[in-house]
Amino acid sequence: MENNQRDSLVMPGERVDDLQNGYYVIQNPQKFCFGMDAVLLSGFAKIKNDEHVLDMGTGTGIIPVLLKAKTPGGHFTGLEIQEECAELAQRSVAYNGLEQDIDIVCGDIKEAAEIFGAASFHAVTSNPPYMIGQHGLQNPYMAKAIARHEILCTLEDVVSQTAKVLKDRGRFYMVHRPFRLVEIFQVLTRYKLEPKRMQLVYPFKDREPNMVLIEALKGGNSRITVEKPLIVYEKPGVYTEEILKIYGPGV
Amino acid sequence: MENNQRDSLVMPGERVDDLQNGYYVIQNPQKFCFGMDAVLLSGFAKIKNDEHVLDMGTGTGIIPVLLKAKTPGGHFTGLEIQEECAELAQRSVAYNGLEQDIDIVCGDIKEAAEIFGAASFHAVTSNPPYMIGQHGLQNPYMAKAIARHEILCTLEDVVSQTAKVLKDRGRFYMVHRPFRLVEIFQVLTRYKLEPKRMQLVYPFKDREPNMVLIEALKGGNSRITVEKPLIVYEKPGVYTEEILKIYGPGV
Repeated sequence: MENNQRDSLVMPGERVDDLQNGYYVIQNPQKFCFGMDAVLLSGFAKIKNDEHVLDMGTGTGIIPVLLKAKTPGGHFTGLEIQEECAELAQRSVAYNGLEQDIDIVCGDIKEAAEIFGAASFHAVTSNPPYMIGQHGLQNPYMAKAIARHEILCTLEDVVSQTAKVLKDRGRFYMVHRPFRLVEIFQVLTRYKLEPKRMQLVYPFKDREPNMVLIEALKGGNSRITVEKPLIVYEKPGVYTEEILKIYGPGV
Repeated sequence: MENNQRDSLVMPGERVDDLQNGYYVIQNPQKFCFGMDAVLLSGFAKIKNDEHVLDMGTGTGIIPVLLKAKTPGGHFTGLEIQEECAELAQRSVAYNGLEQDIDIVCGDIKEAAEIFGAASFHAVTSNPPYMIGQHGLQNPYMAKAIARHEILCTLEDVVSQTAKVLKDRGRFYMVHRPFRLVEIFQVLTRYKLEPKRMQLVYPFKDREPNMVLIEALKGGNSRITVEKPLIVYEKPGVYTEEILKIYGPGV
C-alpha cells in the first residue's frame, strides 16, 4: 500500500504506534489505548501452526496483530462490541495489509457462539473488563468504561462463550487481576475450562502482583503449573530483560 | 528444668535443634524432620492476642512451638495421628517447659470435630501431606510417607474438619504445593473457607514456585490479596533477607 493510502486510514485525533515488529496499531488517546496487559498476554499465549484464534473484546485489535507477528497461527478474529472501536481496529488491520489474516467482527461477546458457531476455534484470548460493578471509579468516557468495567459483559459471559466456541482440548488465554483469582478459577472450572498454567506479573520483585496470566484447557484434568514470576521493572523506569524480550527492541 | 532432666527427654537416635528463639525441637532424622514449609507457615500465620489455635497434623510439633515463640496467641494444640510422633512432640513441649501453652493430642484429623467440638478455635494451621495417591514416590519409611502422601487423610478431610472446628470468621492457614492450587481453592470454597490471602514461594526469582501459603476466612466474601513473591535464595546457598528475617538470627 502507498504511504498516502495508509495515511488516509488515520483519522483526526488518532495516532499510529509502531509495534517494532513490522506492524502498527492505530489508537485514539481520547478513547482507549492498549496497555501492557495485552502485550503480556500475546507473549503468554502459545499459538501453534495454522490455528484459528478468537480474541474476545479485541478493542484496538492489538492482540490479533501481535499474535500474527509473534506466532505461526493461521487466522485471527477479533470480536468487539463497540462499533467505533471495531471500525478503528479494522483500519489497523488494513494499515498493516493483514485483511487476509485478521477479521474484525463487530458483535456481542454474549452471542459469540451464535456468531461463530460451536467448536470453531483452536484457541481464544481475552483481556476482558477487570472491574466488577462499582469496584473502582467508572470511567467518564464510555468507551474506556466499557473496556474496563463489567458493564456489557461479565467474566462468566466471556468464559461461558469461550467454552462453546473452543474445540475440544482448545486453549483459553486470559489476563486478569489477581484479586479475582478465586472467582476466575471457579468460573473456568464450572465451564470445564481447567486452569493449567498461570503466571503472576509483579511490577517490582518486592510488590504485590497486579496482573495474572492464565491458560485453561477445555476438558483438562486438575493440575496447574505456576510459572516463574514475571517482574516488570528492575528499578523505577527500567524494564527487566524479560519484559524487553516480550516487547521487542523498541520499547 | 535441670539440664539433666531435659536431656532425659531425648532418646537415642534423636537430636535437639535450637530454634534460635529460646525454644528447641526434638527430631529423629530417621523418621521425619520439619522443613522450610513449616517455618514459612509460622511466619505467614497472623495469630492475635489470646487466640486458641489448632495445628492439624503437627508432626514434631514445630508449628505450635514456633507460633508460641512468634505470636501472642493464648493456647496452641497440635493434633497428630502417629503415636510415636505425638509422643516425640510431647517431649519437645516438655523440653521447652511449654506444657501450659501447648497440648499435643494423638488423634485422627478426620475426627477433629468430635475430639475438640465445633467452633472451638480462632485459627487453624496445617502443613498437610502434599502428594495425591501415587504422585511422587511413596516413602519407604512409613512415618515419612504418612506425613507426605495422602495416605491417612486427604486435603478434603483437613479442610472439612477445619471448617467445623473453626469459629465463625476464624482463619485457616495452610502451606501446600502450587500444582494443586485450583483444587485447593475448590475445596476451600466448598466448605465456606474463602481464600483471602496467598503468597507464592519461589526458590529463586527466576524459578517456578514450589510452595504456596494460603489464608482462608470462614464465611468470607470472594476477594483475594496475592502478596509480593517470597523468594528464598539470593543466589545458591545464600538466603534472601526476608527468609533470614523469618528464620531469625540462627539460620
